[in-house]
Amino acid sequence: MNLILLEPGDLNSSGQATLTGTRADHAIDVLNVAPGHTIRLGMLNGAIGVGTVLQVIDRCVSLRCVFESKLPPRPRLDLLLALPRPKVLRRLWAQLAALGVGQIMLTNAERVERNYFDTHVITEACYRPLLIEGLQQARDTWLPNVSVHKQFRVLVEDDLARLFPDGRRLVAHPGCGNADPGLARVGSAERMLLAVGPEGGWNDFELKLLTAHGFHSFDMGGRTLRTDTACIALVALIHAALRDADHEEGTQSSQSTQSP
Amino acid sequence: MNLILLEPGDLNSSGQATLTGTRADHAIDVLNVAPGHTIRLGMLNGAIGVGTVLQVIDRCVSLRCVFESKLPPRPRLDLLLALPRPKVLRRLWAQLAALGVGQIMLTNAERVERNYFDTHVITEACYRPLLIEGLQQARDTWLPNVSVHKQFRVLVEDDLARLFPDGRRLVAHPGCGNADPGLARVGSAERMLLAVGPEGGWNDFELKLLTAHGFHSFDMGGRTLRTDTACIALVALIHAALRDADHEEGTQSSQSTQSP
Repeated sequence: MNLILLEPGDLNSSGQATLTGTRADHAIDVLNVAPGHTIRLGMLNGAIGVGTVLQVIDRCVSLRCVFESKLPPRPRLDLLLALPRPKVLRRLWAQLAALGVGQIMLTNAERVERNYFDTHVITEACYRPLLIEGLQQARDTWLPNVSVHKQFRVLVEDDLARLFPDGRRLVAHPGCGNADPGLARVGSAERMLLAVGPEGGWNDFELKLLTAHGFHSFDMGGRTLRTDTACIALVALIHAALRDADHEEGTQSSQSTQSP
Repeated sequence: MNLILLEPGDLNSSGQATLTGTRADHAIDVLNVAPGHTIRLGMLNGAIGVGTVLQVIDRCVSLRCVFESKLPPRPRLDLLLALPRPKVLRRLWAQLAALGVGQIMLTNAERVERNYFDTHVITEACYRPLLIEGLQQARDTWLPNVSVHKQFRVLVEDDLARLFPDGRRLVAHPGCGNADPGLARVGSAERMLLAVGPEGGWNDFELKLLTAHGFHSFDMGGRTLRTDTACIALVALIHAALRDADHEEGTQSSQSTQSP
């Protein structure tokens, strides 16, 4: 836990919060807090800040909280993910939140087993604490939006225009032979949507539907990876491309500022 | 399992092999093999090939095997990893083999707990089947070399010149402020060695020792990731840079072939 996340209800009108439960345990047992100490805080879907410890009583930690005026940037990458095996998805939640994704759309596909939709791993009660764990690891505050879509075709044809109106759409498809996802040419403010298929891949219909709706298919090299490995690898690659684009843009704008 | 790996001892002098155990179960229950069918094979640390099913008797599958003359390329990335928690390392083995690493050097560091070295997760009996699982997933044949180094300083000062004589050395260090690992300028035939620290990071001494031995420190963005997430993300990024370099070189050489 590299940051303790507060929820809006944790903060009273005078900017104080009281940690209890696992967050207090972490502050007391790992950070060894005492009155006067400061700890890194974040407000869920809000700013990063600092909490000054007022008192530690009965395994509760009272804090005076001050937040930065600027919000951290919201992750510019969204994920459309064919629902993986529950065991795999459970491991993915925290890792995806730590890497940074704006939203996670879970969808059906031919090669997704129907009973995967019955698992409690796709209930908010299960995934929300895991997402928060990932945010606290990575010092982020933006909770990914999660939506579950049992009908792939309805998602792509009807809902996607609303869920992801603008930006670049990519679909990872091992064996498609197109090694270049065009990440080198991504714009610095562009949003990205990445579709990752089930273990056996998208079927022809699904891939055609995605392509018809603007998804650019690409292959991450000859290796077929497990869904969790592939997700983490792809999300990391796209974030690196977005960082490079920002850096490039920053370099260019500072250069143009310098020139008369 | 996207490829069934054989070990040298599996093959008799007339190029036949008999699968038993889990590999036979996979061929029978998942691939539904029958005489005449072909399945994808690989020889451990050797070539990819095809096996033609001769017979299926008593949960054993006999194959006639033909291998390609050319070996798959050996992964050009090696990993120097501060020994993670056993639970994390257990999950990493297959994923690292699937992503492709030439060797994995596990080392001590100040923030590695001493009892991690007592775990059976670093015994060959534990990691070898997991590495093979990852290779079979990714259709690779190259088993990563694993070595365990209880003395970080001895590894870096004495052993590394032998274990990784030539190539580029990188150390991931969140917060070092150097966002550019120089991957855009990597050579196409260059080998890479990536050092990944413990959860709490390398200490100052360790980082200085690495830097003094040619490691270039870099930061993968502002997010602090768990060791397993960071490893997968970093290995994926470096492989992508190596692919880009190969692709660039291929483009250049085909261009120079075309020009008179």
